[in-house]
Amino acid sequence: MSAPFRSCEILTVGTELLMGQIVNTNAAYLARRLAELGIPAYWQTVVGDNPDRLDAAIRTAVARSGCVLLTGGLGPTADDITMAGAARAAGVPLVLHEESLKAIGGYFSSMHRPMTANNRKQALMPEGGIVMPNACGTAPGCIVELPDSPAGPAALLLFPGPPKEMTAMFEASGAPYLAARAPFRLRSTYVRMIGIGESAAESRLADLVERQENPTIAPYCSDGEVMFRITQRVSSDADPDLVPPLLDEVRARLGEYIYETGPRAMHEVVVALALEKGRTVAFAESCTAGLTAATFASVPGASGALRGGVVAYADDVKRSLLDVPPEILERHGAVSAECAEAMALGARRRFGSDFAVAVTGIAGPGGGTAEKPVGLVHLAVAGPGGVEKRELRLRGTRERIRQVAALNALDLLRRSLLP
Amino acid sequence: MSAPFRSCEILTVGTELLMGQIVNTNAAYLARRLAELGIPAYWQTVVGDNPDRLDAAIRTAVARSGCVLLTGGLGPTADDITMAGAARAAGVPLVLHEESLKAIGGYFSSMHRPMTANNRKQALMPEGGIVMPNACGTAPGCIVELPDSPAGPAALLLFPGPPKEMTAMFEASGAPYLAARAPFRLRSTYVRMIGIGESAAESRLADLVERQENPTIAPYCSDGEVMFRITQRVSSDADPDLVPPLLDEVRARLGEYIYETGPRAMHEVVVALALEKGRTVAFAESCTAGLTAATFASVPGASGALRGGVVAYADDVKRSLLDVPPEILERHGAVSAECAEAMALGARRRFGSDFAVAVTGIAGPGGGTAEKPVGLVHLAVAGPGGVEKRELRLRGTRERIRQVAALNALDLLRRSLLP
Repeated sequence: MSAPFRSCEILTVGTELLMGQIVNTNAAYLARRLAELGIPAYWQTVVGDNPDRLDAAIRTAVARSGCVLLTGGLGPTADDITMAGAARAAGVPLVLHEESLKAIGGYFSSMHRPMTANNRKQALMPEGGIVMPNACGTAPGCIVELPDSPAGPAALLLFPGPPKEMTAMFEASGAPYLAARAPFRLRSTYVRMIGIGESAAESRLADLVERQENPTIAPYCSDGEVMFRITQRVSSDADPDLVPPLLDEVRARLGEYIYETGPRAMHEVVVALALEKGRTVAFAESCTAGLTAATFASVPGASGALRGGVVAYADDVKRSLLDVPPEILERHGAVSAECAEAMALGARRRFGSDFAVAVTGIAGPGGGTAEKPVGLVHLAVAGPGGVEKRELRLRGTRERIRQVAALNALDLLRRSLLP
Repeated sequence: MSAPFRSCEILTVGTELLMGQIVNTNAAYLARRLAELGIPAYWQTVVGDNPDRLDAAIRTAVARSGCVLLTGGLGPTADDITMAGAARAAGVPLVLHEESLKAIGGYFSSMHRPMTANNRKQALMPEGGIVMPNACGTAPGCIVELPDSPAGPAALLLFPGPPKEMTAMFEASGAPYLAARAPFRLRSTYVRMIGIGESAAESRLADLVERQENPTIAPYCSDGEVMFRITQRVSSDADPDLVPPLLDEVRARLGEYIYETGPRAMHEVVVALALEKGRTVAFAESCTAGLTAATFASVPGASGALRGGVVAYADDVKRSLLDVPPEILERHGAVSAECAEAMALGARRRFGSDFAVAVTGIAGPGGGTAEKPVGLVHLAVAGPGGVEKRELRLRGTRERIRQVAALNALDLLRRSLLP
């Protein structure tokens, strides 16, 4: 086994980040993966397409962290300077990598496009580097080890900037290289909950969070739901698995709120559940205006369970398409538990689905009253066993209110689908 | 006028960023605003909640850039260390700011929650600092000027981490402070287009992009559409405005694709247009499953134009709710121009709206054929003057195909609403 890195930092190269034209999702992805791999990370830096600043950033990063993950600047144009910067840092020349040149040529033939002279530049690598192939584009990546670094084991790992290419290359080549050089290994899982606030959940787990050593349990931010990550450091796969006992303890305290112990989001859980049970679903939405149905349908394969939906924004549409009785609208108003129930029953009849989900509320920013403020949302799910209802009082922007309302509507559907 | 900063960099403080738990949207927002204000920016850094590394990061940033924008670490807990770091950098003590203490107390009374001793910490400011009030939360911000910096005019601007609080404080207090210290001023506007590819648009403007000095014109990345920014550097408001002549030249070449010269996105443009014309709209969606209606409804005030919609995922729903003739589904299939037209006409009748928008396509990842591949989408808009249609052949993920389809559906509606 190779000597472990003491830490790793992320250096993103691209003037478009300095101009605020794009958000640095690459840094977030790599940071999360380093945490999962068990490699400490204390710094992230962004520089533009400027050789002097890139050289300075690489020197600083290697000195303080050892291992550096770089993304961006591997393209064919004169602006793309990262490979040359890595060669300068290692004190080696750039040399042509024949196999990469062939792969780039093959990529262009498969696209029926001519390869330009520029693209030859993308096959130039620091001498002695470990080439990482690019499964999704032209630019190969490279690992440049710096064995003489005074601060211990050091390496530069160069990935392309486009997120799809970066993540594919990281998982295929970067992660295995780093995992073999992590100071320890990790076993981890996520626990995802809804229906309880973050501080309430944390206080119920406070003693576990505080007395934690190994495994640890820590909260993650997530809008409208609560997520914890349980992580055990292990020195080998033979170490006993301590995650399940802690997970059992969390379940014993908060089980009623847990909807997933694993990586899936709410809409993935609920679509999988509907498909597994062979149940069909329809939606009737007022304030979310199709967002709940669209979130459900964003999961590949959702068509096996989704019958359809109605966006019933105007009150007469609630009457004509969902058969909401006029007296309910008159007596209780469109934003009421009674209207939500009638919408769900009407959609279930209209679509002939096993279940129907209804959402009606006030998303704001205007339109609220003292009795029915902005953020009041009524949900209902009609199914073979009757109707389940939920009232929400949400805070925040129009966008947040609509998103958290859709999330809770899918949760109510999930609970109705359970035996 | 104050002496201008030579450049400004962004320093984000927060262990949750180093762990990849959140994406650094604050840095992207501030970077874009610095570019708009005309202040050069060459570095972005992220550090965790560690005083030694924070001190080192502040020292480095002040020395190389002068002005530093910091976000995060202004909360009430022991982890929140940014205010103390700024005081150390300025060589001054933290002192209690009575007005901020009162504001924090008022915030807690308005929320009917008791103020804890911790929150008093948030009223401690570096002595001599310029306090920036927080309109959306408890933590005030602060501007700490460093007049003795050897590298010229220097200052630390401290903002809270939550994006809503940060952006409100930046616009109210940070931007005016920086604008008065920018090395020059900018006049700028965005030109937003759809229906033309980025490289085609760039090649039609290539001579303008290349011979640019002042104003400049530069492309911005945006999925499914093309955006350029025109920017003129001016030394005073009395300088002649050179943006309109360049804008006229861009319009002469690409006017047919331009939907906005300004800040608004497609859904904002189309909702404003429908409201201005007093027209009502309905939606009939298959592959987008409510995403188009939900995007339309995300604009405040959309209820004035939105009647409702149908998510017609299953074919029998297309027949029963949208009256699509069975022979169209049999002969042409659900993903066809004929079906899109029938869906739009059926939705217009069903909802009694002035216009109805239909989307049907194959979002993938499965379900495509050689004749009808993944990414094929048919759009139709039915209105008083007849039916407009558009065929799309999109690439990318299920998510991208659905989003670009919804964007184009709103564009087709926009064109139909124009005289």
